[in-house]
Amino acid sequence: MERSNHADKPCLMQGDIALLTDFYELTMMQGYFKYRHNPRVVFEMFFRKSPFGGGFSVFAGLEDLLKGLVGLKFREDDIDFLSKQKIFQTDFLDYLSSFRFSGDIYAMDEGALVFPNEPLIRVQAPLIQAQLIESFLLNTINFQTLIATKAARVYLASGEGVILEFGLRRAHGVNGAIAAARAAYIGGVAGTSNTLAGKLYDIPVKGTMAHSWIMAFGSELEAFEKYAEIYPDGCILLIDTYDTLSSGLENAIRVGKELQKKGYGNFGIRLDSGDLEYLSKKVRKRFDEEGLEKAKISASNELDECIIHQLVTQGAPIDLWGVGTNLVTAKGDPSLAGVYKLKAKEVNGRFVPVIKVSNNPEKVTNPGIKQVYRFCNNNGSPVADLLALDNEEIKPGEPYRFYHPMYPYRFFDIQHYDRIDPLLSLKMKSGKIVCDLPDLKSIQKNMKNNLKHLDDTFKRIINPHVYKVSLSKTLKELKFRMIEEYRKEYM
Amino acid sequence: MERSNHADKPCLMQGDIALLTDFYELTMMQGYFKYRHNPRVVFEMFFRKSPFGGGFSVFAGLEDLLKGLVGLKFREDDIDFLSKQKIFQTDFLDYLSSFRFSGDIYAMDEGALVFPNEPLIRVQAPLIQAQLIESFLLNTINFQTLIATKAARVYLASGEGVILEFGLRRAHGVNGAIAAARAAYIGGVAGTSNTLAGKLYDIPVKGTMAHSWIMAFGSELEAFEKYAEIYPDGCILLIDTYDTLSSGLENAIRVGKELQKKGYGNFGIRLDSGDLEYLSKKVRKRFDEEGLEKAKISASNELDECIIHQLVTQGAPIDLWGVGTNLVTAKGDPSLAGVYKLKAKEVNGRFVPVIKVSNNPEKVTNPGIKQVYRFCNNNGSPVADLLALDNEEIKPGEPYRFYHPMYPYRFFDIQHYDRIDPLLSLKMKSGKIVCDLPDLKSIQKNMKNNLKHLDDTFKRIINPHVYKVSLSKTLKELKFRMIEEYRKEYM
Repeated sequence: MERSNHADKPCLMQGDIALLTDFYELTMMQGYFKYRHNPRVVFEMFFRKSPFGGGFSVFAGLEDLLKGLVGLKFREDDIDFLSKQKIFQTDFLDYLSSFRFSGDIYAMDEGALVFPNEPLIRVQAPLIQAQLIESFLLNTINFQTLIATKAARVYLASGEGVILEFGLRRAHGVNGAIAAARAAYIGGVAGTSNTLAGKLYDIPVKGTMAHSWIMAFGSELEAFEKYAEIYPDGCILLIDTYDTLSSGLENAIRVGKELQKKGYGNFGIRLDSGDLEYLSKKVRKRFDEEGLEKAKISASNELDECIIHQLVTQGAPIDLWGVGTNLVTAKGDPSLAGVYKLKAKEVNGRFVPVIKVSNNPEKVTNPGIKQVYRFCNNNGSPVADLLALDNEEIKPGEPYRFYHPMYPYRFFDIQHYDRIDPLLSLKMKSGKIVCDLPDLKSIQKNMKNNLKHLDDTFKRIINPHVYKVSLSKTLKELKFRMIEEYRKEYM
Repeated sequence: MERSNHADKPCLMQGDIALLTDFYELTMMQGYFKYRHNPRVVFEMFFRKSPFGGGFSVFAGLEDLLKGLVGLKFREDDIDFLSKQKIFQTDFLDYLSSFRFSGDIYAMDEGALVFPNEPLIRVQAPLIQAQLIESFLLNTINFQTLIATKAARVYLASGEGVILEFGLRRAHGVNGAIAAARAAYIGGVAGTSNTLAGKLYDIPVKGTMAHSWIMAFGSELEAFEKYAEIYPDGCILLIDTYDTLSSGLENAIRVGKELQKKGYGNFGIRLDSGDLEYLSKKVRKRFDEEGLEKAKISASNELDECIIHQLVTQGAPIDLWGVGTNLVTAKGDPSLAGVYKLKAKEVNGRFVPVIKVSNNPEKVTNPGIKQVYRFCNNNGSPVADLLALDNEEIKPGEPYRFYHPMYPYRFFDIQHYDRIDPLLSLKMKSGKIVCDLPDLKSIQKNMKNNLKHLDDTFKRIINPHVYKVSLSKTLKELKFRMIEEYRKEYM
C-alpha cells in the first residue's frame, strides 16, 4: 500500500464541515450538553439495499470523511450564525467554540465490496460528538459509495474496458461533480473529463473536442486537420457533427492516414449520436479497409451499464466508453439510503447494546458493537459475511453457523473455508488518523482485484445472486432476546 | 428588488472555478489560441425537455454562476497541473495565467418560469472564453434549475404548504447538498435542515430531534419532557420510535398539555414512518379531543410530490412536510439535460448566425442571437413565449404569428394580449456584474408570484398542458433557409 502523496492537499471546504450538519443534531447536542448526558456511544453506518438492484456495492469516501473530521471546528462566524438562531445558550456556544472530534473510527477499506446490513463504519465517541458528525458522514459515504458502485457496474458491463467519466455538466453541483469523479475512479473508470478533480485527486484527465470545434472552422475537414496538426498523438476526432458516415468518417480517414504516414498511431474517432452498434461496425470496417487497423473507436451519448452491456454482447467494436450523466447522477437509484444508528451506549463504565425495533422486520437494527468477518474459499472468493460481536473470537479452523438476520430459524453452516478476513479496522483514534491513506490508484487496483475474486453470480447486472450477510450465534441470541424484552415493555 | 447583503460572501471554491471545466475545453482553447482563431461568438444555454414530465421549470443558479465568473482565474498550481499534462505549450499557458472572463451575459431572472427550447442564458464573448466556461455554467444552472423545479412541484402538490428540505445526508456531496438547499428555497420551500446552507445563503434552518434523542434517555416520556424543558417554544416531538399511537402520541399529548398550560402554543409532532394518512387523522382526532387544536402535525419519510399530492387530496391533516432524498436528488429525473450551443459568430465585424443540423428534428438548433418575449393576458397570465432575433422589434399592440419550431406549416396568431415581457436582460458586461442580485427571499417571492399567474393546466403534476414556445416569422425563415443551405452542402 503506497502512502498518499496528497496528505497536505486541502480538503474541500474543510473549515466549514462543522456546520455541514442537520440542524436537529445541534438542538439535540445542546440538550445532551445541558443535561450533562454525554455517555460514550457506538453508532454504525450501514445500508439496507444495494443500489441499482445490484449484487454488491463498492465502499468509497473514507479519506474525505477522515480529513473533514480532523479539521472540524466551529469558526467564529459559525458561532455567530448559531447565536442568531436565538435558541442556543452561551455556555453551549462556548463549548462549541472549543469543540474537536476526538472519537475512534473503525471502517472498511475504500474499494472494499460491501453488502446490505453490515456496518461499513463504526464510530465510538461521546454522544455529543457522534451526533454532530452524522450528516457529514452520511453525505460523504452515501454519495461516493453510490457512484463507485455505479462505476463498477459500468466497468463490468464493458468487459473491464476503458471508461471515461464525462459527467461534470450534469452533476449535482461543484462537489457533486468532483466527489463523483473521485468515486468513479475508485469504481474502475480510467479517467475523467473534470480537470479540477484530476488536479485535486490525481486522476488522469482526458478529452479532445466538442461539436463547437468543428463548427468554429470553415469545414469539417479543416477542423480535423487543424486538430491533428496540434495534437498528432492522441487525436480523437468527433465525426457526427454533419453526417457521420458520408462526411465525418471519410474526413477522419483522410486525416488518420496522414497521421499514420507521419508515424502517429494513437488515432481514433468518437461517436456521440445515432445507433452505436450499427455505426461502430461500419466505422471499424472502413478503418480496416483503409489500413487503419489500430484506429480506436470511442462512443458516448447517454450511456449506462445496461446499454453498454447490450452493445458489448452484440459485438459492437467500441474501444472506449464516455459515460457522463447516468454515471455521476446514478441513474436508476440517485441515492444510497445509508443510515447511522445507535448500537451501544456506555452505562457505568461498560458498553450496553441498544436496539431499534420497528414493525418492519427489515428495519430492526442489529444491536451491539460488531465486526464483519468475510469467509473466503481457497480461490480467495468471498463465500459469505458473518456479523459477530466485537468481543467474540472468530478464528479460522472452526466451523461456523450463519443465522439469517431476520428469521432465526434459518441458518447454514460453513465448515470448509480458506480464510477469514475481519473487514473493519481502526482508521482514527482519539480524533487522529491512524491508518495509511492509500492513493486512488491503489484503491482502484484493490477494487478491481476484489471484483475479480467475486463470483460471477453476484456480478450480474440484472437480478444477481444475493450475497449472504449473517449473524453469529451469539449476536443472533442477543438480538432476539432484546426484541423479546422490548415486546414485553412496549407492545 | 432588494440588493443582496451577501455581495461579499465568498463564492464556494471561487479560486478553483477555472479548472472546473471539461478537459476538451482546454485542448480546444489551445487550438483556437494557436490558430489565432478567436472571433466573438454567441452561445445559448437551453434545455429540450422539462424534467419530471412537468409543465414548467424554475430558473436558478445565476448568482453562483456570475460570482464564479468574476473570480475566475488560473492559479499557479493550476498552470503547473496543466503543464504536467505535456500537451500544452508555454505560450498558451502564459496566456492562461492572465486569463480573465470579459464577456457579456444575458439571462433570465432567477425564479423565472422557463420552458423547453428557449434560451435561459446567452453568452457573448471571444470564442476561447466562451468555450472555457461551458462546463461550469452547465453544472451550476442544470443542477439548481432541476432542484428549484422539483421544489416548486412539491410546493404546489402540498397546496402551497410549508415544506422543509431535509436532504443533506443523501445529497450528492457537500456542494450537492448546499446548492440543492439554495435551489429548493428558490422553488418554494420554507427552510432547510442544512445548517451550513442556512448560513451561506440566509435560508431559515429548522430541525428538532432524531430517534437517537429518544433512545439516548431512559424512556420516551423522559426524552420528550427533557426536550420540552429546553425548547418549550417550537417543540416538535418525534413520536414513532416505539409505537406511534399507543406510546408516542399519548406521551406527546401529556407534554403538549403541560406546555399549553405554561402558555406555549408552538407545539407539534412528527411522523416519520407508517401510513401517514391513517396516522395523521388519528393524531389530529386525539389532539382535538385533548384541546390541542393548535398542535401541528409534520410528516416525513421518503416523500415526493406525488405522495404529497395524494395525501393532500385525501385530506390528511398534515401541516408541515419534511422532504429530503427525493427533493435533493431529483427523484424521477436526476439531471436536467441543459446544453450550451454556438448560435452566432463574428465574421468581418458582424455576427453571422450558426445552426447545428441533426437527423433528429428536435436537435436542430434555433440559429442567431435571440430574445424571449413572454406574451401575457390581462390577468398577467403567460399565454405563450415568442423567440425572435435580437434585432427584431417586438412591440405591444401588434398581432403576432407564432411558428412551431420544427414544423413551419404549424402556427397560430395572438392578437389580443395585455403585455409583452422580454425575459433576457443584461446581467454581466465585460466580465463585471451589472445587475442587482436580489436576495433569496425576493427570488422566492417572485417565483411564487410567477407560479400564481401560471394557468393551472400547466401546473398539473402529471400530464400537464404544453406551454408554447414559438418562433417569430423572421426567425422561422432564417432557420429553414439555413437548413436548406445545409442540406445542399452536406446531404
